[in-house]
Amino acid sequence: MKIGIVGLGKMGYNLALNLIKNGNEVAAYDVNSDSVDKIAQEGALPACSIEELIGKLPDKKVVWLMVPSGNITESVIEEVTKYLKAHDIVIDGGNSNYKDSIRRYNKLKEKGIDFLDCGTSGGTSGALEGACTMIGGDKEVFDYCEKIFKDISVKDGYVYAGAAGSGHFVKMVHNGIEYGMMQSIAEGFEVLNKCDYDINYKEIAKVWNHGSVIRGWLMELMEDAFTKDSDLGEIKGIMNSSGEGKWTVETAMNLGIPTPVIALSLFMRYRSQEDDTFTGKVVAALRNEFGGHAVEKNK
Amino acid sequence: MKIGIVGLGKMGYNLALNLIKNGNEVAAYDVNSDSVDKIAQEGALPACSIEELIGKLPDKKVVWLMVPSGNITESVIEEVTKYLKAHDIVIDGGNSNYKDSIRRYNKLKEKGIDFLDCGTSGGTSGALEGACTMIGGDKEVFDYCEKIFKDISVKDGYVYAGAAGSGHFVKMVHNGIEYGMMQSIAEGFEVLNKCDYDINYKEIAKVWNHGSVIRGWLMELMEDAFTKDSDLGEIKGIMNSSGEGKWTVETAMNLGIPTPVIALSLFMRYRSQEDDTFTGKVVAALRNEFGGHAVEKNK
Repeated sequence: MKIGIVGLGKMGYNLALNLIKNGNEVAAYDVNSDSVDKIAQEGALPACSIEELIGKLPDKKVVWLMVPSGNITESVIEEVTKYLKAHDIVIDGGNSNYKDSIRRYNKLKEKGIDFLDCGTSGGTSGALEGACTMIGGDKEVFDYCEKIFKDISVKDGYVYAGAAGSGHFVKMVHNGIEYGMMQSIAEGFEVLNKCDYDINYKEIAKVWNHGSVIRGWLMELMEDAFTKDSDLGEIKGIMNSSGEGKWTVETAMNLGIPTPVIALSLFMRYRSQEDDTFTGKVVAALRNEFGGHAVEKNK
Repeated sequence: MKIGIVGLGKMGYNLALNLIKNGNEVAAYDVNSDSVDKIAQEGALPACSIEELIGKLPDKKVVWLMVPSGNITESVIEEVTKYLKAHDIVIDGGNSNYKDSIRRYNKLKEKGIDFLDCGTSGGTSGALEGACTMIGGDKEVFDYCEKIFKDISVKDGYVYAGAAGSGHFVKMVHNGIEYGMMQSIAEGFEVLNKCDYDINYKEIAKVWNHGSVIRGWLMELMEDAFTKDSDLGEIKGIMNSSGEGKWTVETAMNLGIPTPVIALSLFMRYRSQEDDTFTGKVVAALRNEFGGHAVEKNK
């Protein structure tokens, strides 16, 4: 199959390589022309603009977007659809909000253009060697594109999730689960870090990966991290996030269902981004007011 | 090696089979004589009492306890040590509290008896086919017994964790992490359950096990569970617990460190055990008092 890829960041570049390796023809564009030159050396057809990219594709064009979610995805879709016509297909493989994907599906439908939303998990190594993909949209459009998902995924690593938006919805929930799992693993190692035993974190992560109930890829990554930096002394404990945990909690609130652990994992990320908190000041001030308890002064 | 096993429940029975399979001689005792008869047919030496069991072991006796933690473990250790002498070894492979294990280590030390605490993970299938074991106690005692741990564990699935109690401590933290991971996975599937998409839970669990960031044994078990019961309609959502999550949170509180997600996972288990809550009555009553909001009456 011949596929046009827009976006050659860490994920898009590896995905392009993965597609080429699996015998697909790839035309590629990125705002960064160095990335385009680089992927051209790997066998992709380079394009200097979205218009040029689309021009390199045969009829019933398939364009894969792998760009940051939000405004950039929005403007790229606008630009891409300028050059597309009915029955062409746009696949958003990024981390878009599923509500945006539903809206885009409907908007493109007005022009007869088909849209698939594809949640992609597995990190940059997965994009290169085999990802996990969850796809939403019309079933017959999925069927037409199925070989692409099969090619870029590990065996059994892709699923048709359902109607428009469901691919990104399922991926959002996946990431929400990931937040809670990561926070839980982290709290466990915090207990090991502060206890009286002299714990070798790497050895513990390693043994937990061999036969234990909590074995899995995240624990394997912990072993890798502790191998490189035995007590993580080189990095700060600031936990950033990129939206999907927040969307999971927003969705849960809109559905009126409790997801306390995922919500708290998100809030602990926010907490980690502050050196001091107004919450802390308020509680310290109140303890001082009612009980005369000491407060620490800002210097 | 010849090992005496006390306790032939789900874990102990499978562990005995595992040891026999790996070429060890096993003498076995359980209060349930049917289990003793059964394991005898698998090649173990049956014993009708702890005294008889100990009598079947050669000098420098090694006794593995696999009995419920708390009072039963306490009384079994008392009974076992009656018949042991200096340099004999007791291994507690159950889910004891690490503080009890430190106390028992010190108490047995007074008689010169060696004690190892072994946290065992991997469930009943792990006990049979290869577990994950975390061992605390004197290093030279661990060294003497190392082949046992190697035999019953998967490759790279055992670790000398450190001083007395550390095996059960590390296992306790492992289970604390497990609580958080399970709650997070559960909340994710709750969102999938309540959303507007028609989600095939089994298919999603399956795809999440192939290439995704959250792949791991717990997700494999989810796939198995949804294969047997596609929407878990056959079971109630009551989440019991057996102590190690609580101990993890108690330990964190004693150390003065936050483990909010593990704590909340524990509390959500408690919540699941009540049909109605006094908390709920209090909040409903207060809303009624200040705002006249409707309350639902008990019938």
